[in-house]
Parts: sequence; structure tokens; C-alpha cells
Amino acid sequence: MQETPKGDRLHIALFGRRNAGKSSMINALTGQDIALVSDVAGTTTDPVYKAMELLPVGPVMFIDTAGIDDVGELGALRVERTMQVLNKTDLALLVIDPATGVGDEEIALAAVVRERKIPLLAVINKADVSSAPLLDLTQWGKTLDCPIIVTSAVSGLGIEKLKQAIIQAAPDDWEGQPLIGDLLQPGDTVVMVVPIDLAAPKGRLILPQVQAIRDALDNDAICIVAKERELRSVIDNMKRPPRLVVTDSQEFLKVSADTPPDVWLTSFSILMARHKGDLSTLAAGAKAIDDLKPGDSVLVAEGCTHHRQADDIGRVKIPRWLRQRVGGDLDFTWVSGGDFPTDLSRYKLIIHCGSCMLNRRQMVYRLSVAREQNIPIVNYGVLIAWLHGILPRALRPFPLVASLFTDEQP
Amino acid sequence: MQETPKGDRLHIALFGRRNAGKSSMINALTGQDIALVSDVAGTTTDPVYKAMELLPVGPVMFIDTAGIDDVGELGALRVERTMQVLNKTDLALLVIDPATGVGDEEIALAAVVRERKIPLLAVINKADVSSAPLLDLTQWGKTLDCPIIVTSAVSGLGIEKLKQAIIQAAPDDWEGQPLIGDLLQPGDTVVMVVPIDLAAPKGRLILPQVQAIRDALDNDAICIVAKERELRSVIDNMKRPPRLVVTDSQEFLKVSADTPPDVWLTSFSILMARHKGDLSTLAAGAKAIDDLKPGDSVLVAEGCTHHRQADDIGRVKIPRWLRQRVGGDLDFTWVSGGDFPTDLSRYKLIIHCGSCMLNRRQMVYRLSVAREQNIPIVNYGVLIAWLHGILPRALRPFPLVASLFTDEQP
Repeated sequence: MQETPKGDRLHIALFGRRNAGKSSMINALTGQDIALVSDVAGTTTDPVYKAMELLPVGPVMFIDTAGIDDVGELGALRVERTMQVLNKTDLALLVIDPATGVGDEEIALAAVVRERKIPLLAVINKADVSSAPLLDLTQWGKTLDCPIIVTSAVSGLGIEKLKQAIIQAAPDDWEGQPLIGDLLQPGDTVVMVVPIDLAAPKGRLILPQVQAIRDALDNDAICIVAKERELRSVIDNMKRPPRLVVTDSQEFLKVSADTPPDVWLTSFSILMARHKGDLSTLAAGAKAIDDLKPGDSVLVAEGCTHHRQADDIGRVKIPRWLRQRVGGDLDFTWVSGGDFPTDLSRYKLIIHCGSCMLNRRQMVYRLSVAREQNIPIVNYGVLIAWLHGILPRALRPFPLVASLFTDEQP
Repeated sequence: MQETPKGDRLHIALFGRRNAGKSSMINALTGQDIALVSDVAGTTTDPVYKAMELLPVGPVMFIDTAGIDDVGELGALRVERTMQVLNKTDLALLVIDPATGVGDEEIALAAVVRERKIPLLAVINKADVSSAPLLDLTQWGKTLDCPIIVTSAVSGLGIEKLKQAIIQAAPDDWEGQPLIGDLLQPGDTVVMVVPIDLAAPKGRLILPQVQAIRDALDNDAICIVAKERELRSVIDNMKRPPRLVVTDSQEFLKVSADTPPDVWLTSFSILMARHKGDLSTLAAGAKAIDDLKPGDSVLVAEGCTHHRQADDIGRVKIPRWLRQRVGGDLDFTWVSGGDFPTDLSRYKLIIHCGSCMLNRRQMVYRLSVAREQNIPIVNYGVLIAWLHGILPRALRPFPLVASLFTDEQP
């Protein structure tokens, strides 16, 4: 049995001072002894992730962070990492020890969270042992401008109430657009073209393929999965043609030739771009490719640190295609995993991976950083479709986005 | 990106005395600092698993075990767990500290490994710091009756040579029968019927489904994936019928009715039974169901400790069906995970899960224990097909096994 992909979980981050009891709170919420808990302040250094099912929200990911009041050089580094967690946070819990109460750190954190438009809950911990009078509660709630829940991670007091508050505060739109389900009617057939890539481990399919099959089935559609060489014979063998063909971006040209003109064609990468972020921003970014000149700086951002093949798409193939396109060398920078620069001003273009390992919030954040600084951003699949001249066709299932490339009104 | 399933990895277990350097050896082989290493003897208590790619063998799983010379009550328990690891070991490494050399423990371990017909390599560690003369090597090789490789996990000496020896010693047949690939010709179509079960987490497919799709694609076949309700319309929409229909066992009856009589039909569970073990033993076990009487003892063995649904197949459905069949109550025992009793004499029947989380060696071991004690053993899929009267049809793709149920010669 496999688990829900990390990127499709609601990300709930716990913030608070050292020793406020963030790790214990996660243990109390998950009913497991996973996080390292001790009475020494500052036990959690790097953010720690814990997946669980929280009904009726579904799959969630708790993120345990270092204390917002950490000190010294290392402490400052840890606080910085804690703040980076906000880039992927769908819902924030601020854990407060009543003995220290609401001070400058809590007020500053709440302000940053509010600025990012992330829902916030204040969680008073240690209510069972605290001798501090809890009369400040109303004042604290006003100061932080968020609901306050009184709990004890150790005794379990208030934990069920906290779960209910989490469920109510969870943003409705955190799941984003469906991957593929809304493009299909019950009984429709979708053909998925899946080149067996050397990069896919034995016995597995890559994540976007599994997610697309599952989403199609959940919407009562039928999936045909085949390698690119079989596509023509698959379509020839059907009495009614498929509604949609989805291909790996790297086979776009061949698949486009083998797909009848009246059948929709798109790519896993374009589906993922819509599911995880904002397809129109990425499609608009594709147009900036034509403005690139030799010597321009280009940022390539990968969401994970995967094992690299000799002809890696982000490190080798895309740079080669772009150099050919602009007729000269470009100045490429690569970042991977959680790293994403806040100052993008030196780049003429950002090229992002399919982000199968990132959550929607993280991708939306990156898109917003690029938009604010007016830097065009595109992803692998959109870029490849554009370079091959088939982006308008690949966007036909999404008329609003497709209208960017035509003079017609959607 | 997802990893190769654990059950499909070559399992390489490291045995040896406490502080012989088994954990360091795994770190040296994998190039990672994963196992907990210390200079205090007896750091590894429960077996520790570490997955890696070892070319050209492919995906392997190293298993780090407790010292075979562990002492005291807890030590004895740890040694027992270490010996249980043999049930899933495809290849054994015996790590030896030259300072202690080959003694009774090493000789006993080698004898057990030989009896299980598991390939064995002796690995001399600490060759860089040992002041012990290595002149006993030839004698040690004779005593243990296996190849000897001299290494140092710390300096890296001999590690490449050890990898080569592992590749050479790996048994050819550890992968077992293909899952589905050999039933399909290039260009053939297979229809996979996948009920979306409440047990499958959001965004995922269960492992045997993913493995079957991948194996079919690797063999240039075409997969159609659909829910049971769509099967008839899928077949109606094909100009040439599919070669094979594979269904989840729980939908056998409906799928059998909707599959044309001249099309092969089988289940994921039957495919997995063949891939991971010995389909003929399991099919023969099905016949014993008709000999069950009220009050008989039945063992239900599950390979994993999955989250149980209200109508769990192994805990609820199968017991209910069997009680109905025998017209009275039965005495059920359940075991799960790595547990499997060595004395099966009280059971009239063993019912095993699909074993998607077990490796082939582990399943073959369990089948051999049952066979030696003359206890019939069946798995979920074979049992369900038998109860529904469609086992002979479901075995038609495997003529040798099917002949168990007919008087015809295969």
C-alpha cells in the first residue's frame, strides 16, 4: 500500500518559542511518539515532517520547526529555516507556553503569517501544569488577531477541540484545480502516453502518472496506458476515439503527429502546472523565451534532488535547446529542493520543474515571487511544448489560458 | 519519483559478531551514513533496512542485524530476530573482525545459511588496522566453505571487490516468475479492472496494480485501466478484443460475467502468487477448502500491518465466506507482518494475503514450511476464485497449474 503523495497533503506548520511544546503537540495530534521531545529548549533544529490522516480534511503533513526565539549564529540560521517553512504552509499553529505568554516573538510571527494570508490558530499549551493565570486570553486573542485554543499536549486536554479548529480553519482552495478529472465525463477514455524512462525505478511509474490514472478512475473515466510507439495502434483499435491524450513532454512531437487533430492533447507537466499552481502565469512565461539573448541569466529550479541521468532534462536537454534557440550561450543557475532565491532580479527567465514533490502553496508562493518582480516563469512541460510549436494545441483543453495565444476571445 | 517496491529488491543480509563492523560495511557499500555506527559492541538491535541500487543487479535491500554472539536474555531475543532475517535473505554476508577470527559462531552461522541454500560470502573487515596476521585466510575459507573478501569499511579497501563478489554470488532466480509480462505479446492489450477501494489512499493506486501496469509496458503491451462498471463498455469499444483481463479478486464474479469466454481472465492476486512464490502449491491448497469442518483451526497470515477497514478482507470477509461454506464456526488465528509460526500442525488450512510487502524468498520459505508439514496453503485471490467457482478459468493462462483441476494432460 502506498501513501498519499507528500505534495498533495495539507501542510500544517507549528511555530513557537523553544520549549513551548511544538513537538509534543504534534505527538498529541498524531497519537504517535515520532518527534524528538525533551525538556531541553531547542531540541528541534531542522524542520521535521509527520504525515497523518485528519478526517474530514484528509491527508495532512505536520511540520515541526525550530524555536522562533533561537539565539546565536546557529540559532539565527534555524530561525531563517523556520521562516522558509512559511513558503509551504497552508495553515499555521502558534504554540504558546502560558508561562512566557504572548511577547514580541509571537506578535512578529503572527504579523508575517497574516501578511502571507495563511490562516493562523494560537494554541496555549501546558494548561494542566501552568500556574500562570489564564486571564490574558482575551487580550492575547486580540493582539494576535486569531482564535485561541487552550490545550495540554501531555494530558490531552483540548486536543480534540484543536483538531476541530484545524478542520474549520483549513483553507478551502488548498487542493487547487483537479489534475485531470474535470476534463473527463464519466465513460470517457483518456490515453496516457508513458515512455519508460531510464529514470523510473523498476516496478514503478512516476508520480504524476499514478496520480492522473487515479484521478481519471475517481471520475469514472477509462485510462489507456501505452508507450509512445503503440499510440497509433491504440487509437486505430478504438471504435470511439479518446476524449484526451496526455503525454510525457519529451514525446510531444511524435504524440502530436499520432493524435487525430480533433482529439485534445496535453502533457502530464501541463496538467501538473494547473493542479499545483497557475497555468496562465506559466503559459505567459513561455512567450518570454523568444526575448532571450545570448548571455542572459536563466534560473532552473528543481523541486527535488533526484538522481541525475546523463541526459537530464533540467541540466542538459533544456539548456541545449535554449542555446540553440537563442544562438549562443546563456548563464544558467540551478537550484533544487527547498531552495528558491528571494531576489530574482538578475534573471531574464525562470524555468521550473513539474514540481511533483512540492505542494501547491509552495508553487503558488514561487509564482507570486516571480510575478511581483516581473520575471517570466515557465515550467519544463510548457517550455517544451512552446519550443516544439505545439503549446497552443496543448492548451486547447483550457480555453481561458489558450486565449493568451490567440486573438479570439475565450 | 517513487522507489522500487521493497518486495522486489534482492535482500542482502549482513551477519557477524557484535562490533565486527556490519553497520560500517553497509555505510561503505551504500556510500551513506545511514546505519547507526559506534565503537560500542551491540549497537544494532532490531534489523535495519537500507535500500540502494547496485548495478548491474539492480535494486537491493541491505539488512543490518544484531550480533550473532549477543548475550543475556535480551541478547538471545536479538539473536532470534537475526535468525528470522534468514527467512527473507537472498544472499548472506558474514562480516568477520580478524582480531576474533572464525570461531564457533561463524561456523554455526555458515552451516545454517548453507542448509537454507542461501549463497554466502565471508567479509574480513578492519584490514587497515588489524595487527592480526591474515595467514589464516585459506583455512577460514575452507572452514566456512565460501569465498573470502578482505576489506576495510573505514578506508574503503576492497569494497569495490566486495560489490563485484555480491553481483557474482546473487542467485539468478531471486526475481521469480514475471508478474504479467510473459503472458503478453508486444502490441497485446490487457484490461486491468481496478475497483477504487476505500483502502487506497488519495492519489495512489495499490502496489500490484502499479507493478502490473509497469511490467506490461516494459513488455510493449497496452494497458487499459478501468473500474468494474466500465469493463463491458471498454470491451465493446475495442475492434480487436484484449488478450487478458486482470481483476481485483473482490470483483471476480462480475468481471467474469462481462469478459468474453475466449478472453483470458485472472486476478492481481493470482499473478502475485506466481511472481512471489509457487502458484501450483497455492492452487492445490484451494482444494483443501472443501475438506474443512466446523471447529477446524485456520491460520490467516498477512504480510503487513495495514490499516483495517470495517469489511477487511482477511479479518471479516474471508472468515464469513468460509463459515458459510462449512456451515459452522471455524477457529481462526491471525498473524501479520514478519510473524509466521514454525509449528503449523494444529491448522487444517493456511490462508495467506497477496504478499505485496513480502519478498519472494520470504514467501517461498513460508510455502516450504507448509509443504514440509503437509498443511494446505492458499492465498486470498486463489481462495476467492475457488469459492466463486471460477478458479479453473482464472488458471487458464497457466496450463501446468490448471491441469490440477482437470483430467486433461497439459
